[in-house]
Amino acid sequence: MENVIIGEKTQELIDSLGIELVSSEINNFVDGGVCAAKGWKANGVHCGLAHKALTDTEEKSQAANNALPSANKKNDLAMIMSDKRAAAAAVYTTNKVKGAPLTVTKENLADGYAQGVIVNSVNANTCNADGIEKAKKMAELAANAMGISPADMVVASTGVIGQVFPIEPIEKGIPGLYSGLSYTGNDEAVKAIMTTDTKPKEIAVECEIGGKICRVGGMLKGSGMIHPNMATTLTFITSDAAISPEMVKKALCDNVQYTLNCVSVDGDMSTNDMCVVMANGCAGNSEITEENDDYGIFCEALWTVMVNLARMMARDGEGATKLIECNVKGADSFETAKTAAKSVIMSSLFKAAMYGEDANCGRIMCALGYADAEYDVNKIDIDIASKGGYLNVCRQGSLLDFDEVLAKKILVETDITIIINLNQGDNGAMAWGCDLTYDYVKINGDYRS
Amino acid sequence: MENVIIGEKTQELIDSLGIELVSSEINNFVDGGVCAAKGWKANGVHCGLAHKALTDTEEKSQAANNALPSANKKNDLAMIMSDKRAAAAAVYTTNKVKGAPLTVTKENLADGYAQGVIVNSVNANTCNADGIEKAKKMAELAANAMGISPADMVVASTGVIGQVFPIEPIEKGIPGLYSGLSYTGNDEAVKAIMTTDTKPKEIAVECEIGGKICRVGGMLKGSGMIHPNMATTLTFITSDAAISPEMVKKALCDNVQYTLNCVSVDGDMSTNDMCVVMANGCAGNSEITEENDDYGIFCEALWTVMVNLARMMARDGEGATKLIECNVKGADSFETAKTAAKSVIMSSLFKAAMYGEDANCGRIMCALGYADAEYDVNKIDIDIASKGGYLNVCRQGSLLDFDEVLAKKILVETDITIIINLNQGDNGAMAWGCDLTYDYVKINGDYRS
Repeated sequence: MENVIIGEKTQELIDSLGIELVSSEINNFVDGGVCAAKGWKANGVHCGLAHKALTDTEEKSQAANNALPSANKKNDLAMIMSDKRAAAAAVYTTNKVKGAPLTVTKENLADGYAQGVIVNSVNANTCNADGIEKAKKMAELAANAMGISPADMVVASTGVIGQVFPIEPIEKGIPGLYSGLSYTGNDEAVKAIMTTDTKPKEIAVECEIGGKICRVGGMLKGSGMIHPNMATTLTFITSDAAISPEMVKKALCDNVQYTLNCVSVDGDMSTNDMCVVMANGCAGNSEITEENDDYGIFCEALWTVMVNLARMMARDGEGATKLIECNVKGADSFETAKTAAKSVIMSSLFKAAMYGEDANCGRIMCALGYADAEYDVNKIDIDIASKGGYLNVCRQGSLLDFDEVLAKKILVETDITIIINLNQGDNGAMAWGCDLTYDYVKINGDYRS
Repeated sequence: MENVIIGEKTQELIDSLGIELVSSEINNFVDGGVCAAKGWKANGVHCGLAHKALTDTEEKSQAANNALPSANKKNDLAMIMSDKRAAAAAVYTTNKVKGAPLTVTKENLADGYAQGVIVNSVNANTCNADGIEKAKKMAELAANAMGISPADMVVASTGVIGQVFPIEPIEKGIPGLYSGLSYTGNDEAVKAIMTTDTKPKEIAVECEIGGKICRVGGMLKGSGMIHPNMATTLTFITSDAAISPEMVKKALCDNVQYTLNCVSVDGDMSTNDMCVVMANGCAGNSEITEENDDYGIFCEALWTVMVNLARMMARDGEGATKLIECNVKGADSFETAKTAAKSVIMSSLFKAAMYGEDANCGRIMCALGYADAEYDVNKIDIDIASKGGYLNVCRQGSLLDFDEVLAKKILVETDITIIINLNQGDNGAMAWGCDLTYDYVKINGDYRS
């Protein structure tokens, strides 16, 4: 990280999260999120979505709220638009229950191109009988405002599942949303996709492809119901690189398994997860159409964006006070390493111990023991580390009588790493999670109110 | 349940847990737990086990504690003994990391017989280099006191993983433990296996086999790291029925998959889980050696014991304020139904919503959607029920605009049922869990202190 330049706003964000950025060292971090790359505008507004049918009293209170100056209302509707059609690809949740917008987006991305994004928070538009109809309507309204084809729209929703989706606030909100689009609108857009997130999560990097400066930037929302698998949470990534739809898809699929798919906040896989990557070619590089060096550079930039978004998502998991990275090495395959790493970061008991800053390392062994993968537990070594220090806690499957004072010094930090060596192969994987806290329970005990 | 007689102490226990007993209607519930059946004695004492090496100050405080009258010290060591050798079978955790006592018990039960049990709480004797040696020593010490072969001992431990296991307190405690054995010692024994359990959990039933009154009784400890699979939590079941070792094993395996294996408190599968069933023949019935009517009656009694222990365990899950039963029907197989039911009761988001008494039924659909089983989510119906009422919340995969006031009335109760009809087959399964609360986090944030 020595020679890497970091944008001022990005530095502020990661400082406030209490984590470090991960870099491939060929990228500089720039501000601007989804607007960092050339030709990308964005905006976000408060359109007044509710996640349930309102009573008369609530309607009045809502009306009063809508009459407040806009600074007092959380954005709930965002738009992203490219100056020209962009090569686009997405991965989606594997949950059998799927948000209606996913079906519409999948259809629209079948040709490998998109130009606009419309996304709302508050209501997930899932498990509704008329969901697809309304998701199509939302895409159409946005496309009409932008003057593009509805088939070039990405549409997404996040929020409460199974409540009637009100299209009226969206219809009312779109004209203002469109007219406010700007090349620096990422701040407003990222606020609109936040649900229980405490921080906006965005990151962008700069690299050089074929002599041209290219950028890749993204925004993401967490922060509960996070357990991506063959998909991601709601993530939008934009770039100005010129790259074919096939190669965008390949770059996304190559990276998602090592980044967003290795995050778990609570083991609950959302119905609405989606990660979309769009590249509009405005950087002017010659189009990437094969796995050459240029593709490698693009991939590395994309990886840097995705791995940092993944870490931010875990760190800002619901109620979280710590980011927990589990680094498994010495496995016979990537899959084994990933299964072992995810088993540890998903263990409720381990997560609660991390919150308590208690080095109850038996729980790490326990989680490694029930992971759905084969290895000899009697060969396992475990260390724990943070800015506070480094400590061996287990050798060959037996826990050591370690220094509890140093252990506490390590666990008091907000960015903790668990290093596990299975000592039975040459493969590794990383997974990211967070601690389990009172606030997780509080946030989720009454999410709908 | 109309004609079923319930022992007074049993009634008190289930009242204090706030749940209902489940009965097969041919069994009466009797008091006495593991001592209900003829020829079974038990006892429990405080022997002063610690789960970590003590500092000087702690040793002094421990010594002071040991000097207190025994009423102030929690039992941590229990013994169960049969007047004669009993046919015995057990199932164990499938965690790759196994407590040392399991290895010793498995070896001892290979011949199908056992006569005594020695079990401690506080320290799990797991992930210790000298664990097996010490588990053997513990069995030997107990067997010597009882005057039986060490090969007829069941040995078990529960508590913190990976701390040196001190054999001295056990050695000191066994003489008093043995001399205090009695036919009414179940109360002391069940206290000794409790860890974070808030209530002792025991149940016994009476039935008639071949004209003889037979009893089956059991005790169980929960209450965190509970996610049995092909095994159980620590459960000891005794009977006076005459039955062959082969049929005991069959009865246990037939029942465990529908009862203890359908409980999840936190998704963490313990390293030390074990369920052992022992039948000593003191009732005088003619020995059950095949799957005849007598076997059917024994099985039903065993099921009644196990299903009620399973429900008690879930209800007394760490921090729990509610028992959640998920009843899935209309599945193409038992396995599908069980996978769906367990996915719901394991969802952290659903569990937190239950704690908040919030009918966020989208989370039920979400958990059904990511369950590792195949079905059409558009056919699913969901109802919720308790003493407070009955409510349809989802039809054909779409959530209904239900009565929130009635929903609240239902969820305010402590014994909640979620009824799910997949509408695509004739098979069903039940699973039991609990809500996720602040106290779960609190208990597990600093378990070792």
